[in-house]
Amino acid sequence: MLDVEAGLAAAQAGLGLIPAEAAEAIGKACDPGLFDVAGLGRRAGPAGNPAIPLVAALREQVEPGVRRFVHYGATSQDVNDTAAMLVACRALVPILADLEASAEACAGLAAGHRDTPMAGRTVLQHAVPITFGLKAAGWLSALDRARARLDGLSLPVQYGGAAGTLAVLGERGHEVPPRLAAELGLAEPLLPWHTDRGPVAELACALGMAAGTLGKIATDVKLLAQTEVAEVAEPTAPGRGGSSAMPHKRNPVGAMSALACVQRVPGLVGSVLAGMAQEHERAAGPWQAEWETLGELLRLTGSAASWLREVLEGLTVDAARMRANLDATRGLLMAERVVAALGGSPAARERVDAACARAVEEDLSLRDALLADPGTGLSPGELDSALDPAAHLGSAGVFVDRALARARGWDHGHGHRRAGA
Amino acid sequence: MLDVEAGLAAAQAGLGLIPAEAAEAIGKACDPGLFDVAGLGRRAGPAGNPAIPLVAALREQVEPGVRRFVHYGATSQDVNDTAAMLVACRALVPILADLEASAEACAGLAAGHRDTPMAGRTVLQHAVPITFGLKAAGWLSALDRARARLDGLSLPVQYGGAAGTLAVLGERGHEVPPRLAAELGLAEPLLPWHTDRGPVAELACALGMAAGTLGKIATDVKLLAQTEVAEVAEPTAPGRGGSSAMPHKRNPVGAMSALACVQRVPGLVGSVLAGMAQEHERAAGPWQAEWETLGELLRLTGSAASWLREVLEGLTVDAARMRANLDATRGLLMAERVVAALGGSPAARERVDAACARAVEEDLSLRDALLADPGTGLSPGELDSALDPAAHLGSAGVFVDRALARARGWDHGHGHRRAGA
Amino acid sequence: MLDVEAGLAAAQAGLGLIPAEAAEAIGKACDPGLFDVAGLGRRAGPAGNPAIPLVAALREQVEPGVRRFVHYGATSQDVNDTAAMLVACRALVPILADLEASAEACAGLAAGHRDTPMAGRTVLQHAVPITFGLKAAGWLSALDRARARLDGLSLPVQYGGAAGTLAVLGERGHEVPPRLAAELGLAEPLLPWHTDRGPVAELACALGMAAGTLGKIATDVKLLAQTEVAEVAEPTAPGRGGSSAMPHKRNPVGAMSALACVQRVPGLVGSVLAGMAQEHERAAGPWQAEWETLGELLRLTGSAASWLREVLEGLTVDAARMRANLDATRGLLMAERVVAALGGSPAARERVDAACARAVEEDLSLRDALLADPGTGLSPGELDSALDPAAHLGSAGVFVDRALARARGWDHGHGHRRAGA
Amino acid sequence: MLDVEAGLAAAQAGLGLIPAEAAEAIGKACDPGLFDVAGLGRRAGPAGNPAIPLVAALREQVEPGVRRFVHYGATSQDVNDTAAMLVACRALVPILADLEASAEACAGLAAGHRDTPMAGRTVLQHAVPITFGLKAAGWLSALDRARARLDGLSLPVQYGGAAGTLAVLGERGHEVPPRLAAELGLAEPLLPWHTDRGPVAELACALGMAAGTLGKIATDVKLLAQTEVAEVAEPTAPGRGGSSAMPHKRNPVGAMSALACVQRVPGLVGSVLAGMAQEHERAAGPWQAEWETLGELLRLTGSAASWLREVLEGLTVDAARMRANLDATRGLLMAERVVAALGGSPAARERVDAACARAVEEDLSLRDALLADPGTGLSPGELDSALDPAAHLGSAGVFVDRALARARGWDHGHGHRRAGA
Repeated sequence: MLDVEAGLAAAQAGLGLIPAEAAEAIGKACDPGLFDVAGLGRRAGPAGNPAIPLVAALREQVEPGVRRFVHYGATSQDVNDTAAMLVACRALVPILADLEASAEACAGLAAGHRDTPMAGRTVLQHAVPITFGLKAAGWLSALDRARARLDGLSLPVQYGGAAGTLAVLGERGHEVPPRLAAELGLAEPLLPWHTDRGPVAELACALGMAAGTLGKIATDVKLLAQTEVAEVAEPTAPGRGGSSAMPHKRNPVGAMSALACVQRVPGLVGSVLAGMAQEHERAAGPWQAEWETLGELLRLTGSAASWLREVLEGLTVDAARMRANLDATRGLLMAERVVAALGGSPAARERVDAACARAVEEDLSLRDALLADPGTGLSPGELDSALDPAAHLGSAGVFVDRALARARGWDHGHGHRRAGA
Repeated sequence: MLDVEAGLAAAQAGLGLIPAEAAEAIGKACDPGLFDVAGLGRRAGPAGNPAIPLVAALREQVEPGVRRFVHYGATSQDVNDTAAMLVACRALVPILADLEASAEACAGLAAGHRDTPMAGRTVLQHAVPITFGLKAAGWLSALDRARARLDGLSLPVQYGGAAGTLAVLGERGHEVPPRLAAELGLAEPLLPWHTDRGPVAELACALGMAAGTLGKIATDVKLLAQTEVAEVAEPTAPGRGGSSAMPHKRNPVGAMSALACVQRVPGLVGSVLAGMAQEHERAAGPWQAEWETLGELLRLTGSAASWLREVLEGLTVDAARMRANLDATRGLLMAERVVAALGGSPAARERVDAACARAVEEDLSLRDALLADPGTGLSPGELDSALDPAAHLGSAGVFVDRALARARGWDHGHGHRRAGA
Repeated sequence: MLDVEAGLAAAQAGLGLIPAEAAEAIGKACDPGLFDVAGLGRRAGPAGNPAIPLVAALREQVEPGVRRFVHYGATSQDVNDTAAMLVACRALVPILADLEASAEACAGLAAGHRDTPMAGRTVLQHAVPITFGLKAAGWLSALDRARARLDGLSLPVQYGGAAGTLAVLGERGHEVPPRLAAELGLAEPLLPWHTDRGPVAELACALGMAAGTLGKIATDVKLLAQTEVAEVAEPTAPGRGGSSAMPHKRNPVGAMSALACVQRVPGLVGSVLAGMAQEHERAAGPWQAEWETLGELLRLTGSAASWLREVLEGLTVDAARMRANLDATRGLLMAERVVAALGGSPAARERVDAACARAVEEDLSLRDALLADPGTGLSPGELDSALDPAAHLGSAGVFVDRALARARGWDHGHGHRRAGA
Repeated sequence: MLDVEAGLAAAQAGLGLIPAEAAEAIGKACDPGLFDVAGLGRRAGPAGNPAIPLVAALREQVEPGVRRFVHYGATSQDVNDTAAMLVACRALVPILADLEASAEACAGLAAGHRDTPMAGRTVLQHAVPITFGLKAAGWLSALDRARARLDGLSLPVQYGGAAGTLAVLGERGHEVPPRLAAELGLAEPLLPWHTDRGPVAELACALGMAAGTLGKIATDVKLLAQTEVAEVAEPTAPGRGGSSAMPHKRNPVGAMSALACVQRVPGLVGSVLAGMAQEHERAAGPWQAEWETLGELLRLTGSAASWLREVLEGLTVDAARMRANLDATRGLLMAERVVAALGGSPAARERVDAACARAVEEDLSLRDALLADPGTGLSPGELDSALDPAAHLGSAGVFVDRALARARGWDHGHGHRRAGA
């Protein structure tokens, strides 16, 4: 908020609306060390917002003749909203960095395991083989879109005065927002947006979608790390993921903590959207409800990104266990492939269905159940080929390559916020 | 959490499960001043919960021989959950006090304005007359139910050990929860409830409904305090409800701040309910997501109650303005009454509809429009009587008396949590 | 809504407020077959609610002289709200029946598997042994509380007239609600509750908590049915849970469908709570937003209950697989028990931690790792005893018995809604 | 879904993957009139999704030799998800049309009332003058952004086969999605996105923000239409906005109904975001929970847009009442302007504060209170000028012009979805 007040004075001095010396004095006084933050907090309650006591205290910090140029033509919401955009802009730097590092880790996993077969699981049941590379490519692609949404946000300054007309500045009020935007590195709005909460909602939604993407990855890690699955493990460190009651436990604390953050986000996004119905020129309730909510959204999404980055950068992948788990159903997850080998007709499917049923009932492998049915017309060699998971991966490799290429292109074309901020 | 560890040791010593001296030593060591809270926070992240570093630090505070009796048979969730219930129990004391004071203020308003007519407003349009007492009685009745729900909550201790069997204690584990409940002033659970989040959900819902009730009252105050309505005004004080841009403003900062709190609550309740789907014997994410959410729910509902109490205890009611506003539609809101005076038939209604339409079109009072229609058969005196808002209040007074009687009865029958906590 | 209009006329005739013949005629006309539902729907949009066209159509169904007694003294919201309570009351009958049957199925599982050991899983990792009976007892206990909350709801009639005063009825309006409540089998309200949405919020919250409980159980079933875990399986039937692409798939379609319902509920409960801030004597938006939301809540919770009932009544439990999975970590989940056998001191825990680490690193069983450490002082026999999961179940059996006893008691004390409705 | 199956066959025939005659036969069989929708619905429940019975029924409609080419290489989710995108694409046509018409109505209001003064209201209190044109320009600007977000959405086809590899098609599976996208007029995805719900979340968020914008406008209309404010009125028509109990009522049924829709949206968006944490290659619950939710989001946002369009196109604006209401505080809302006329210093503000306080206490106009203070140094003429609302509108006109120019530019640059769909 002090940066906003200083920037506002500088912008107005640049336009000749206030004296340059006043702007300089205000800029110097905007030093957080000069203020009693707890006292400001106490006065913010009855005042209705924190800008009122802050402006009063800032005026105390400058010479009497300068005081009228502090917060010139502004209303409290101008300062609060612009400060919120500034906080968001700054908080997005580490969030985007953690998302980028997570994406890079996924790219490494996708490239390194491009051809590592594992069970594809639908509705938590083995379905058909996929590769771990394809799974990681899906994570990568989702992370890249999450980054692009956040990177493309427009975070505008707010400056409209008491009710959006900037009347105190006569006819020149509308010249201030572009200058203020340039001072603070924020975007220029078309109009004051006191009760048009589009910019806040766009930010909330982009964070909500990023959190959702992180939640998808954390869910997969949590499930893959289950004792009975054991295909991945989180990095270990002293004091990380232990249990106060069970000495042997190595908990997936990163995925768990990311999910704990992520699961709180949708309700907060809903709160922001519900708060868009703001009354007239300033709302009584919905606007004020945004303040902490927005901070929570940045903090929770950022924490989830930080946890996932650590998990993904240190993830242990057990390709042998993936291969072993593929055999858990003794060939059943190759049923689709055998149907195709038999010509793909409904009759072929019925035949394979019957073999699957028999395998389950008589505790046979699908191979043995199929061999027992002379009607298939498949030789043991043809059958082995039809039952080989590594030969039934379709376009998995192409998809991995495509996600990697897009990710590399994305890094060339984007990332200006990271660089410039 | 330290109170829980101390209580656990005391309960176990009482049952002869650990030495009395150990419990005494642990009780002494459970002094918040002995702990580095920021350091515990830092270690809680990688550990996955705050109980792990706390228990480690607590063990450091006692003699080596006592250490094994610290957190005996417990898992981290036992301490976290029981501490959450203890926090809730303590936070409910001021929340219930503020709700009680708010209810008393409403009772005062209902009794004092039992017969003060005002416009009843439906869909934000004048409808028929009511009394301000009836409106306040509605607030009172809703507050009393909100209190009853919170007062009736069962807040149980949690003690199940690693996975709910209390196996470390052999066959005597199940004896501990009742003793621990007695030590801490909490309820005794039927079973360990590690992943049955009913108690937390009940608390969240009761807070959510209390917040909703506070939101209804704050909405009414906000609307009644509008410049054009001006039937009530919030209390004033230096530094309260001003504007940084508009010197004349007296904002309804209490209703506004209460609404700012209230509007964040439904999303948080939704988060708690969504988090009930907890996996197996301890969840990886949903449980951890509850921690801050529950604190927010207590804080926001409590803040809203505190704001509303101040508003209601200092509310200025302008009965003259209420009477003046009743005339804003020049008799139209008495149309229902005139229909009844004409016999209540559909034909009577059509006649009154026509008069209403004519009054609006020709800018007449309803009285003049009706007088112009000889078919009504009403004399001017009968018409004046039919158009008198104070004579068309039906059961309003009976309802006020009923709400006041119930409120008095409620105070006799309840309030044990307030007294005993 | 027709039942409400008929009940209102009957109640008013009983009080002598309208002629008995009028009530009889109205009662006869309240026959759904006489109305064009689609046409009513079309007119409800512009009218703002469905009661307006319904009342108009109902008046068409009776003699002109009776028309004024239709919907006498009532406002649209009286009919809508009372009808909503009536719908809820009727919908709760099958919902409670499905919850009861689910609870009975859980009681059967708890009793039948009181002593069946399985891995207790925390944070989706093996922790210590529990019994399947204890898990089912937890489900049972949560279901019983969910039933009790729904069974204990008060569903009151609404009757306040235009703005809550019942002024059209003179001074006798307040006599109607108790009679109407008796006519319809609903509860009697203290006051008209047009904008005090407590009754709706209580219903929504109780449904939300029931759905949350169903979600917990469905989550456990889904995880236990995973290909790699395979400890339970859903019932099968032709056309149930297959896959259009994979002939061998047997999806846990019941748990999946229950979760699909359950996951939509928290947002709907949040909507109801957010809608409690209703303006003045009738809200413009929040009230109308409740209508479909409440229907969805009943439908989704009811569907989830129906799905879970089918799953639980037909659940296949594989105790042998549970026993086999207990050995998946080759003794690690007995670490807590070995710590206890070694005296429970921090030193004992460090020793067991070291053995666990060695077992993991060198791919040994915990038994072999401990035997290799002479410092334990345990003989092979003592060690085998310490490593026996079935001997480390603590209070599991007591807890199962307790949940079963409570469930039996509950059935004696409750269930009147089921019987009476 | 039938359009998707037909499009898939056509795309595959175009690539030579299936015979052209088969595609033709399938295309002919994809006629909704040939199917028993209720029967499909009944079988969809146990099957777990509607694609399974639909594909079975579709196969019945073609010759046995063609059956294997129906749904070739596809999984149920491919059809459901692509159909959902197709439904969204089609539903956006009327939604965008209603938003466009609403924006045009706002542009007309902004242009027509560019210089119509009214009270600016902050926290529901009069603040400083604005113009109705500025208010309408704010609505317009928000609507334009809402349209741009929806218009810019990417709605991709889904086609990944059982688990995302398209293995049934050998190495050519990845060639199908672009062809299918062209067939259906949808976007081409980078990868199959079975459990990367970005496209659905983006749609949900864009709808949520559109609904929020509609809610802001409806809130303003509702408040401006209050009996005591009466600055705007909704269009009237027979059967629209009446009351069953109050013959004179003209309810703002459009704003009310729009708000009823809008208020349900945030919870639904939250549900979609919460559902992004989908397991592995197909989720068990979160995916299925999206189906109805997405339909509701389209229906509710579309209904709100339709209601608002009707309201805005027929809105009656009472400029005389706006001017009269400006005087409701007898000059107080010009206090800011007087402070500026006195030089803008803190001392000037204190002086004006004192005059405001005196005006309130002694029931004076601000003019009289200021005239009574000789220290202001303002002549009556200067004072009248300082107290003229129409002279204190700052940049309002510039902002109106800017919003109108942007809206015109937007219509040139966008709108391809409307045209092309």
